[in-house]
Amino acid sequence: MKIDILSLFPEMFQGVFGTSMLKHAQEKNVVQYRVVNFRDYSVNKHKKVDDYPYGGGAGMVLTPQPLFDAVHDLANEAKPRVILMCPQGETYTQQKAEELAKEDHLIIICGHYEGYDERIRQHLVTDEISIGDYILTGGEIGAMVIADSVTRLLPGVLGNQQSAITDSFSTGLLEHPQYTRPADFRGMKVPDVLLSGHHERIEQWRQEQSRKRTEMRRPDLLKKQKKQ
Amino acid sequence: MKIDILSLFPEMFQGVFGTSMLKHAQEKNVVQYRVVNFRDYSVNKHKKVDDYPYGGGAGMVLTPQPLFDAVHDLANEAKPRVILMCPQGETYTQQKAEELAKEDHLIIICGHYEGYDERIRQHLVTDEISIGDYILTGGEIGAMVIADSVTRLLPGVLGNQQSAITDSFSTGLLEHPQYTRPADFRGMKVPDVLLSGHHERIEQWRQEQSRKRTEMRRPDLLKKQKKQ
Repeated sequence: MKIDILSLFPEMFQGVFGTSMLKHAQEKNVVQYRVVNFRDYSVNKHKKVDDYPYGGGAGMVLTPQPLFDAVHDLANEAKPRVILMCPQGETYTQQKAEELAKEDHLIIICGHYEGYDERIRQHLVTDEISIGDYILTGGEIGAMVIADSVTRLLPGVLGNQQSAITDSFSTGLLEHPQYTRPADFRGMKVPDVLLSGHHERIEQWRQEQSRKRTEMRRPDLLKKQKKQ
Repeated sequence: MKIDILSLFPEMFQGVFGTSMLKHAQEKNVVQYRVVNFRDYSVNKHKKVDDYPYGGGAGMVLTPQPLFDAVHDLANEAKPRVILMCPQGETYTQQKAEELAKEDHLIIICGHYEGYDERIRQHLVTDEISIGDYILTGGEIGAMVIADSVTRLLPGVLGNQQSAITDSFSTGLLEHPQYTRPADFRGMKVPDVLLSGHHERIEQWRQEQSRKRTEMRRPDLLKKQKKQ
């Protein structure tokens, strides 16, 4: 898979793409990341990429030309998914990550402070995505969320052990409590059942805890499960 | 404000903390970030920080000792908010960002692949936060979300122009479409009303568009607004 990111701050991605899983996935040639500064595509003599909004108002707006030309250049002959990171987009979920993981090529557009000219939404992008109901300075951290969540789903990226971990948002239930050594840490103890060696009771306890925790913290997940 | 991050991959934060707003906020002394590898606090002779789960199962679990000692050391005399990044946590929102921005000191704990020993949740942390319903390799990108969204709210960080931008999740409505020059980009045109110079009509159009877009894309935001 190819993941291209269009950003005015390419240096923001160094730490994340150069570490741990994302680094290993690249070394294994499972994925290829490219971070491109779309300012390089501006035909403006001062390499400007934004301008004042028509109709007035605060804030600058990203102008269509650099982004249209950058996407056109990166897309080559293939048809990539072109994703716009923005607060107006659909809220990102694990289902969306699974959908994107089936693609061959993603292009992710990150604005920074500025708004997007509406023609970018209407005629250039295939998906508008928001990672949550909070405000960030730019789309870069959101692009990292997509790159990470999609990459870990690609075949060969996670070892068996890691991929066997029960994933909260795949099962629809939150994970049960986990404990490790020591059994008594500064007076705080591990529940007896986990030390019992009785596998059936342990499994039962875990299922109960998992359901209880979901009921208490995220009743919306249980409702969703019932609907399906 | 002080934001301390406990992670096994401190290098992941270099790009984000060294760029743009987060960099400027540090230079202005509005905020001080510290990224600490909690492996340094392990008293295990091999500096181990995780171990097998009691009761069996896949995956490793972060052991309490290094995290308890790291938080204790960083907290000093003050009482920080201690935040655990995890899928079981409360879903992060702009309201939570505003709440955290009032604190003097945040300590954010990031696991990576591993689960957390339950005693960390019960006796060490004040908040468990999830940035959304998707699975990431670790808590690091989530910690960046919190650092970014909280820092931009601190006094003196954003210029007047940027802070005047209507924020989708503060007003409860998605932003209206924005357009900038050229008025005709490769045949794609800016709506006439925005070129009319008629401020009242422009304002009316924007409000309509804002409401329409919210109804179409995020009816849940309108429902929330009515409840308040």
